[in-house]
Amino acid sequence: MTRVRIDLFSSLDGHTSVGGGPENPMGDDWGPLTTAYVATRTVKERVFGDTSGAGTTGVDDAYAAAFFQGIGAEIMGAAMFGLHSFPDDPEWKGWWGDEPPFGVPVYVLTSTAPRPDVAMQGGTTFRFRDCSVEDVLAEAVAAAGGLDVRVGGGIGTARAFLRAGLVDDLHVAIAPVVLDRGHRVWEDLRGFEHTHRTTIEVAESGTIHVTFTRQDR
Amino acid sequence: MTRVRIDLFSSLDGHTSVGGGPENPMGDDWGPLTTAYVATRTVKERVFGDTSGAGTTGVDDAYAAAFFQGIGAEIMGAAMFGLHSFPDDPEWKGWWGDEPPFGVPVYVLTSTAPRPDVAMQGGTTFRFRDCSVEDVLAEAVAAAGGLDVRVGGGIGTARAFLRAGLVDDLHVAIAPVVLDRGHRVWEDLRGFEHTHRTTIEVAESGTIHVTFTRQDR
Repeated sequence: MTRVRIDLFSSLDGHTSVGGGPENPMGDDWGPLTTAYVATRTVKERVFGDTSGAGTTGVDDAYAAAFFQGIGAEIMGAAMFGLHSFPDDPEWKGWWGDEPPFGVPVYVLTSTAPRPDVAMQGGTTFRFRDCSVEDVLAEAVAAAGGLDVRVGGGIGTARAFLRAGLVDDLHVAIAPVVLDRGHRVWEDLRGFEHTHRTTIEVAESGTIHVTFTRQDR
Repeated sequence: MTRVRIDLFSSLDGHTSVGGGPENPMGDDWGPLTTAYVATRTVKERVFGDTSGAGTTGVDDAYAAAFFQGIGAEIMGAAMFGLHSFPDDPEWKGWWGDEPPFGVPVYVLTSTAPRPDVAMQGGTTFRFRDCSVEDVLAEAVAAAGGLDVRVGGGIGTARAFLRAGLVDDLHVAIAPVVLDRGHRVWEDLRGFEHTHRTTIEVAESGTIHVTFTRQDR
């Protein structure tokens, strides 16, 4: 059965990075939050095309590998796709080049003018929708063909799905840093540990991997 | 050499409990934050006088045992001592009964009318001071006789010492719960991992023990 998954990065104090504009879309604090993730062999290969076998192979890599497995469709917000950074470019096709690392239909939630689908190399198709989280999720589930649906972000979009109770699996990778600024990762999740089973594991890098798995499915 | 130590309890989202008044001084969220700590053999013996050997003996107990070792003086705020809950009781001697579990001089920071020292059974003496964090710390260090000084809380007092850069060892026990309310544990600590070496360990209970150890001493 399709599960709805979210993966987030957080600091010890529960913050994630705020985007810094078109030249720095993830913001200055994104680097420290994702250092261990980017260092994994899986990410070096899957995201950066480095097939040399370089990269870490420990706990962080196990979570990175799981991240890429079993996803049949993705949902993201307009800001993550870049529509807020490049609102006047009707040809904008995201940050990820000609062959984005998704390889599946990607639903972009946007309240701006509708855009036609954009088919990229490698199986990614961007589809733009102006609808509720429930409606876009129903469409993504159908497109996923029995595989899982990831809500990719940004944090506002992730929180909208979490608030609506639509998320089966939440993975938060907590980097061993204190940011003291940025978006709050955990807002509106009081008692989430009662509806979802919690596991916690510390990687060699000091990254704390917290997973929440919904119990009633 | 004397080190200045703080131990805090936090939720995954970086909150600690807000006191609920004289009848419930630690507040409703204190229980979930301290479940694993209270379950340890060390706390059952040291705080509750249970010498039967009951209680957990794993990672949580190791941190609980360390908590009680090597402290020569303690500092706390007026609220933690109870002066805000019982402002009109000149005979108030704290929440801990006739024999408090400190066993050392305890400096209570208060801006209200001065009180005489209160000597309790078991070596605890409460001493009331209206001065800066630096001045009370100097006095506590002298009283500690080479042992460490703990800043016991509450969170406002702890944060005052952290902001002033006076803390050598910070231990945060993060319970696997999401509170979404309460005082913020981590405020004003951006970059703390750069001045203090970080270690992270997960206990059997799911509690994440994060320690910061100052590098320059």
